[in-house]
Amino acid sequence: MHEQLVHVLLTVLDLGGTFVFAISGAVAAVRHRLDIFGIMVLAFAAGNAGGITRDVLIGAVPPAAIANWTYVGVSILAGFIVFFWDPVVTRLDHAVQWFDAVGLAFFAVAGAEKALVHGLNPLMAALLGMLTGIGGGMLRDVLVREIPVVLRADLYALAALAGAAVVVTAHPLHVSPLISTLVGGLLCFALRYGAIRHGWHLPTAQPPRGG
Amino acid sequence: MHEQLVHVLLTVLDLGGTFVFAISGAVAAVRHRLDIFGIMVLAFAAGNAGGITRDVLIGAVPPAAIANWTYVGVSILAGFIVFFWDPVVTRLDHAVQWFDAVGLAFFAVAGAEKALVHGLNPLMAALLGMLTGIGGGMLRDVLVREIPVVLRADLYALAALAGAAVVVTAHPLHVSPLISTLVGGLLCFALRYGAIRHGWHLPTAQPPRGG
Amino acid sequence: MHEQLVHVLLTVLDLGGTFVFAISGAVAAVRHRLDIFGIMVLAFAAGNAGGITRDVLIGAVPPAAIANWTYVGVSILAGFIVFFWDPVVTRLDHAVQWFDAVGLAFFAVAGAEKALVHGLNPLMAALLGMLTGIGGGMLRDVLVREIPVVLRADLYALAALAGAAVVVTAHPLHVSPLISTLVGGLLCFALRYGAIRHGWHLPTAQPPRGG
Repeated sequence: MHEQLVHVLLTVLDLGGTFVFAISGAVAAVRHRLDIFGIMVLAFAAGNAGGITRDVLIGAVPPAAIANWTYVGVSILAGFIVFFWDPVVTRLDHAVQWFDAVGLAFFAVAGAEKALVHGLNPLMAALLGMLTGIGGGMLRDVLVREIPVVLRADLYALAALAGAAVVVTAHPLHVSPLISTLVGGLLCFALRYGAIRHGWHLPTAQPPRGG
Repeated sequence: MHEQLVHVLLTVLDLGGTFVFAISGAVAAVRHRLDIFGIMVLAFAAGNAGGITRDVLIGAVPPAAIANWTYVGVSILAGFIVFFWDPVVTRLDHAVQWFDAVGLAFFAVAGAEKALVHGLNPLMAALLGMLTGIGGGMLRDVLVREIPVVLRADLYALAALAGAAVVVTAHPLHVSPLISTLVGGLLCFALRYGAIRHGWHLPTAQPPRGG
Repeated sequence: MHEQLVHVLLTVLDLGGTFVFAISGAVAAVRHRLDIFGIMVLAFAAGNAGGITRDVLIGAVPPAAIANWTYVGVSILAGFIVFFWDPVVTRLDHAVQWFDAVGLAFFAVAGAEKALVHGLNPLMAALLGMLTGIGGGMLRDVLVREIPVVLRADLYALAALAGAAVVVTAHPLHVSPLISTLVGGLLCFALRYGAIRHGWHLPTAQPPRGG
């Protein structure tokens, strides 16, 4: 019963994260004037790179996104939405970065939860959650030759880690994963919201003299 | 008997695809004035990234290109050919893109066939064939900091998917894989030929107003 | 007894390589003005991409760097050192490239040794050692949008291959891995030292006429 709940929850989170990251990939593809198939490829890459990397690293092969057609379907759906309703989707200022923030939240908590289910220790589960979250955006940006958002944007990897940390901390306390993933996801999104809207940021190192 | 045929066919297709992609990688390396070892590295990367990714995703580790020295040998041979006969190889206009088109055809059908052999469902086998085809060119282009051909070129991923789709469609009809991979490979190459020579292309989305 | 020695040796080499590559990643992050978390991410990526790739390719999942918190700890330590003592670390001319050279030596011999332990044949073990060595620097450079050092720098992949070759050649001669990894590592570093300090290099191909 509990295991089934976790399984359903993981699938919903994974597909939700895939959908919004796929939207962000498709929007980036439209901005770079790719054709409709290029839009689909970038939607799939952005939506699934994080989850595929996670599954390969924990030994869950073939990865869910390869073994199961739903992930491809969701990515293609996102691609079509952006292709046909592009003016609507991109009316939102900085559309890529908002969809990206939501996807980050979904994947960070889903990645941490799945890593726990596969028996990783809490610290590594939190880091794997972070990695799951940042993977999709990294591949999307490398493919269109931009510096990855994870390096460029404020509180990006930290937000993912914070969300994942909530999930792994709640686990030994027997909090329902429904609640822990909700709180973790909201925390992750809130940190990115603050960074985008209010410029929250972390300190940078003193630049080297003459650098 | 039949299984042995498929095994031989897969090996021939895989090595053929490795060879032509390795040529494309070596030509790109020469164009960027890399030294002879850089040529070898880029030849190996372009020739084997697609197959290695496919093998990792279906759980066939160590991947054929790592477990078996032939793939390295074929990549090095391609590197030497380009290094010593470069004026011959590059006399062909847009040499990279023609070798790339042939490699795409080989890998798309080989990837789909190998995925079927490993029990993936037809839809995912076709997509894995596409992924195998586009992987090598993607890594080659990212490494020399060009926008990957899969995003830039017309009918690229679609050609790979079409070739792979022929293979997976023929499978339940008990068509010999010899014939289905030949037809699929030719279809893939023909689509890329039309795109390069005659400018066939897919529609792009309406660019956002003021974008 | 002997197996335990090899295990300890591998762990020391792996962590040593992780540490110096993580330093190189953190220095590159500071140069690109990333915030403290971006420094940590690039330190982890540079320090662990090579080892994670190797472990995935030989089927040792979850990879050591994911299953075991020490690798993360070492990467974070390197990130903090660079963040707080940056003027000291970067006073060294071309700091990235020297730390990179040491990391290359550590990982090339560790990768070859670990591949031998997992039963790969000597040729592929040497190549996997090379791949382990060049992986971290490649990801670091792709993420900050520079042409990867492996393609740009003289005697880079060759140095890694030479170091790894010493390890695999010594293996059937029953030389202690302590000695073979030491000699291999020194050879690798010496080749890079000569390339950086004295401009040792390999031939490049004749550029194509009118290219």
